[in-house]
Amino acid sequence: MKRVKLIVAYDGTNYCGWQQQPNAITVEGILNEALTSLLKEEIRVIGASRTDSGVHAKGNVAVFDTCSPIPAEKISYALNQRLPEDIVIQKSEETSLEFHPRRCNCVKTYEYKILNSDFPSPTHRLYSYFVYKKLDLEKMKLAATFLVGEHDFKSFCSIHAQVESTVRTIYSIEWKQDKDLIHIIICGNGFLYNMVRIITGTLVQVGMGFYQPEHVREILELKDRKAAGPTAPAKGLQLNEIRYEV
Amino acid sequence: MKRVKLIVAYDGTNYCGWQQQPNAITVEGILNEALTSLLKEEIRVIGASRTDSGVHAKGNVAVFDTCSPIPAEKISYALNQRLPEDIVIQKSEETSLEFHPRRCNCVKTYEYKILNSDFPSPTHRLYSYFVYKKLDLEKMKLAATFLVGEHDFKSFCSIHAQVESTVRTIYSIEWKQDKDLIHIIICGNGFLYNMVRIITGTLVQVGMGFYQPEHVREILELKDRKAAGPTAPAKGLQLNEIRYEV
Repeated sequence: MKRVKLIVAYDGTNYCGWQQQPNAITVEGILNEALTSLLKEEIRVIGASRTDSGVHAKGNVAVFDTCSPIPAEKISYALNQRLPEDIVIQKSEETSLEFHPRRCNCVKTYEYKILNSDFPSPTHRLYSYFVYKKLDLEKMKLAATFLVGEHDFKSFCSIHAQVESTVRTIYSIEWKQDKDLIHIIICGNGFLYNMVRIITGTLVQVGMGFYQPEHVREILELKDRKAAGPTAPAKGLQLNEIRYEV
Repeated sequence: MKRVKLIVAYDGTNYCGWQQQPNAITVEGILNEALTSLLKEEIRVIGASRTDSGVHAKGNVAVFDTCSPIPAEKISYALNQRLPEDIVIQKSEETSLEFHPRRCNCVKTYEYKILNSDFPSPTHRLYSYFVYKKLDLEKMKLAATFLVGEHDFKSFCSIHAQVESTVRTIYSIEWKQDKDLIHIIICGNGFLYNMVRIITGTLVQVGMGFYQPEHVREILELKDRKAAGPTAPAKGLQLNEIRYEV
């Protein structure tokens, strides 16, 4: 038996998120079906990040065990033949039987796109959050600096989350701008439920002038979800990469 | 009566191109319906560029005449309320009654996106041409230089086109690369039917090593569609902008 690791990219638009559910089409559900049909044995993948409905991924990670003689690195090609166009395996490789994608230390990179223009863009509509009020990017960048480092992110966590600790480390928040499109690239050792979307929603409030950048420090200290801004829409978010420490 | 000029953006994925046709959903058809319903008079727009099925636009131009008292610059907002998400008016303004979007001199900018990677990308699948064979970008750039200037582009024109002259001027071909995504930005005084897609298809042949860059000069001289490369897929193409000379 071997354990196979997959790098999975998907357009989240037409899926009820990653996690398998009865009566809903999910990325995990589609992967399990395609793998079971390909390998002729019941397969249940374990995913690294259970992304929400509408969230996209360039590099989510999943593993499964199989006795199939197909070489691990060939599984990507065979599996892509059985997957819809909006889910594409980017890589498959054999990994250690001890490797568990949620229990191993890793660095995750998320990217959030905001379209800041007078009118929405048809071709970006499914992959960005449209904001027509002109954003003050310099204030947003300053506000973001208060979030970098190890903090208790309780204010930036959905009240529906069930976790022991809300302390996380953000390693970096980088910005890229391509005309009207603002990219926020956040890198950390793990993210709470809705954390990137609440951070973005809060930074947008700063960019609109509703809070001063320094207020973000107070929001952190209050440890209260109601202190932070709204949850930005799922469609602007993409899980770019998960890097495991070796 | 006044003439109103619209800047129209659309995601071409779900349309049988710009031009109105019986029994097909087209951008022009949808615009005519929405304008007729908004202005309570029969409206038939005249478009600048009759883009093909699947081609996208950031800035196509259309005009129409109306007796409506709604100020021209407010029509964009009212019209967007009646349009689907994949067609968005970016601007509306009054223009001269003599202005005809196809008869006036203009500079058009098209952008073609190629995804050059081992596997397709789900979120770029509708907006780029996926090529997995590694492309030699330097050779493609050199080949493109032979196309800049005034030339007879008969070799780069669909045999189905009916035009008097196949001479056009390309002002510039610019390149942008963002990781695996190659953008070709072509600017000219007019383009023949399928011209940008045939140019791209030919440059991809060069990038794959099937022709030397200098062969593009011979293709031009042959004035024969069969001498050029294949027509690259519509979905990679976007009409970025049309600038009229004043």
